[in-house]
Amino acid sequence: MEVKKILLTEDEMPRQWYNIAADMPTAMQPPLHPGTGQPVGPDDLAPIFPMNLIEQEVSTERWIDIPDEVLGVLKIWRPAPLVRAYNLEKALDTPAKIYYKNESYSPAGSHKPNTAVPQAYYNKVFGTKHITTETGAGQWGSALSFAGAQYGIDIVVYMVKISYQQKPYRRLMMNTWGAQCYASPSTRTEAGRKMLEKDPDTPGSLGMAISEAVEAAVSREDTKYALGSVLNHVMTHQTIIGLEALKQFEKVGDYPDIVIGCAGGGSNFAGLSFPFARDKIHGKEMRIIAVEPTSCPTMTRGPFAYDFGDTVQMTPLLPMHTLGHDFVPAPIHAGGLRYHGMAPQVSQLIEDKIIEPLAVHQIETFEAGVLFARTEGIIPAPETDHAIAAVIREAKRAKEEGKEKTILFNMSGHGLVDLAAYDAYFSGKLSDYALPEEEIERALKTIESLPKINAG
Amino acid sequence: MEVKKILLTEDEMPRQWYNIAADMPTAMQPPLHPGTGQPVGPDDLAPIFPMNLIEQEVSTERWIDIPDEVLGVLKIWRPAPLVRAYNLEKALDTPAKIYYKNESYSPAGSHKPNTAVPQAYYNKVFGTKHITTETGAGQWGSALSFAGAQYGIDIVVYMVKISYQQKPYRRLMMNTWGAQCYASPSTRTEAGRKMLEKDPDTPGSLGMAISEAVEAAVSREDTKYALGSVLNHVMTHQTIIGLEALKQFEKVGDYPDIVIGCAGGGSNFAGLSFPFARDKIHGKEMRIIAVEPTSCPTMTRGPFAYDFGDTVQMTPLLPMHTLGHDFVPAPIHAGGLRYHGMAPQVSQLIEDKIIEPLAVHQIETFEAGVLFARTEGIIPAPETDHAIAAVIREAKRAKEEGKEKTILFNMSGHGLVDLAAYDAYFSGKLSDYALPEEEIERALKTIESLPKINAG
Repeated sequence: MEVKKILLTEDEMPRQWYNIAADMPTAMQPPLHPGTGQPVGPDDLAPIFPMNLIEQEVSTERWIDIPDEVLGVLKIWRPAPLVRAYNLEKALDTPAKIYYKNESYSPAGSHKPNTAVPQAYYNKVFGTKHITTETGAGQWGSALSFAGAQYGIDIVVYMVKISYQQKPYRRLMMNTWGAQCYASPSTRTEAGRKMLEKDPDTPGSLGMAISEAVEAAVSREDTKYALGSVLNHVMTHQTIIGLEALKQFEKVGDYPDIVIGCAGGGSNFAGLSFPFARDKIHGKEMRIIAVEPTSCPTMTRGPFAYDFGDTVQMTPLLPMHTLGHDFVPAPIHAGGLRYHGMAPQVSQLIEDKIIEPLAVHQIETFEAGVLFARTEGIIPAPETDHAIAAVIREAKRAKEEGKEKTILFNMSGHGLVDLAAYDAYFSGKLSDYALPEEEIERALKTIESLPKINAG
Repeated sequence: MEVKKILLTEDEMPRQWYNIAADMPTAMQPPLHPGTGQPVGPDDLAPIFPMNLIEQEVSTERWIDIPDEVLGVLKIWRPAPLVRAYNLEKALDTPAKIYYKNESYSPAGSHKPNTAVPQAYYNKVFGTKHITTETGAGQWGSALSFAGAQYGIDIVVYMVKISYQQKPYRRLMMNTWGAQCYASPSTRTEAGRKMLEKDPDTPGSLGMAISEAVEAAVSREDTKYALGSVLNHVMTHQTIIGLEALKQFEKVGDYPDIVIGCAGGGSNFAGLSFPFARDKIHGKEMRIIAVEPTSCPTMTRGPFAYDFGDTVQMTPLLPMHTLGHDFVPAPIHAGGLRYHGMAPQVSQLIEDKIIEPLAVHQIETFEAGVLFARTEGIIPAPETDHAIAAVIREAKRAKEEGKEKTILFNMSGHGLVDLAAYDAYFSGKLSDYALPEEEIERALKTIESLPKINAG
């Protein structure tokens, strides 16, 4: 019988993460201090992150050891299977071979614990007692809550208000793991109170929630902040996905022609694709596609520019594709893809033509997700549906071209706590929405006065 | 490093199910025709089940081949890992070794697809176009919907009304897989209309929903009915859990002293325990514990007697532990454990002292589930929490006795779509409830006039 899942044993788990900083074709632009506009050093980040994670953030070492204490927790669900999507292939009548990494087996149901666990661990080693964070759809907040419980660290989550209201189950997961969760903007921080004063009915945004979590971290002893995406060390932690996939492809004697992931802040995409991007940087011919919604087209429509990670301009300025830090995306159902910016490493690799961005409409993504559920069984998260939509496009193209391509994508999470989104889709309540040109222009006004990227 | 998950490859999957009918210490009492009181034969069951499944139901062959087409679908998530619960052991400071089979990786999140897949397959082979069924908490209905999508069979689910209202996500899962789901009692069947006439505000019960689904099956061409628990063939399909576990224990050179599962209709419990019960029947010293809620104490308080599987007395009379077919359990949060009866094979093995029943209070089960979530990561289904409560009792006893026992239990499902139950627990809204003696007596009046079990 055909083998469906290519498995690794715990012994075969990667013992090191891959840090793409060692292989970037163009040197990364430094983050800048929000006050001075000068490059930030490790000490500037020390109020919000523990130094051991800051060292990873700025490291250019190609390989970083995964501590045994981290592997021990990752083993709750890792290694993750590489799965051949035979049924989807058959439904599409495509000559393409479609594989996916199943990251939905983690306790939180997504890839997010891959970095939540090491972040909680390094904080524990550093002596941190409390970690604050923000969450959009709730995937990250629940992942960090799970990780906090593993190491006995207290977790406080600021959750984008619209998601807090629409997704009570995510908050309940956080509570079950022992964390506290508040709707953002909240009255618990100066930043939150300001935002509520400006617009009491705001649905919130990731940028706003980041502002609250950062403020809560710097204003309390023994407290640090954790970010679930965007930063270099987060991308590095997630590379365990792609490193496992490389080993798994080796086992079956195959290698992907196309690697696909959805991208909100960039971490599940980077996690799967960076180990493959390394080969592409060194000459391998392949395509690497990052998929975003047309309603929040950061990579396809936003310029590569310095911008704040948050709304109230507390974070360093990061070199990234951005729609401007004031941008509040439409309340689409893939909450994890509603972010104004994009990971600097992903952004730089788009500039360097290693990664190609693609924007897809919402309804196409749900059509793709439902086809996947009815063929491969797993109901994907709405974010993941974006990757699947692109996979289906490429599988159809392979059929038209009559080429047996190998496609790999990241099943970044299941949708069992996002079923209200499918309900909206089935009842015809969803519409397609592409951010219009004039809104992009208006949104980008907020970055006009910021330092410009030095084109070298 | 310690191995946490004992894995099998797809090649190592069992190729046959185990049918405990071949090893029962006491011959099973036959099911009786509801009209005549005579033993039913295969032909009596033909209006509701396809003949290939009826043959399995009455088979006494010890081993039944698993068709390749079934294995192909089970491979979406099987083999399931056997996991060593190191963190839970540490939290309990117990010398006991605790292992669990993780059945939460299936697309529907529980063990139910283990039988939904073969049932859909055998119906497909038989020529069935539509399958009707009932569901309590929604686990079974969603599992059959998933399986129906795999083989292109139309699924119609009657869902106990209180669960339909409390668990919209389960209904949405069914819809995503292409099935239809109705709150029961409904106005779509004669049985449903009668029940609504009697009590328009009834919360519904599994017994009522079974009546509706059976009626819907017999009254339509090309339509059969499927049951997610209780019957012999369902127990047989689920034995893949225990058969995998046996192989996995062999790999680590261990064997359980105690096997534990929660039991509503009995299938997850039987699936894990029957392959071990075989060894016990043949002399192996061990304990096998079936756990139920004190509010629906079928095994611990209900007599072993002939009773109907449903409320309106359409099913054959089954020899089982029962609280009477009219019994409507309190709306506790573990909906899958709200059934008046128990699988005849499990019931008979209780009589034969192979299985020991245990009833636990609701709050103890949630305490257990939260401890499990914070140590082992996975948030269990409220049903599964019952098994975990018993595991914790036994682990504590092992500590008191200073004995290094090996405990195995079935992590029958995750609780990600049952988080409202945890919310009720955290906010102090749950109470303990043991069914009082007078209610049991009243409930049992309904079986007084039925044929009695021939004690041999």
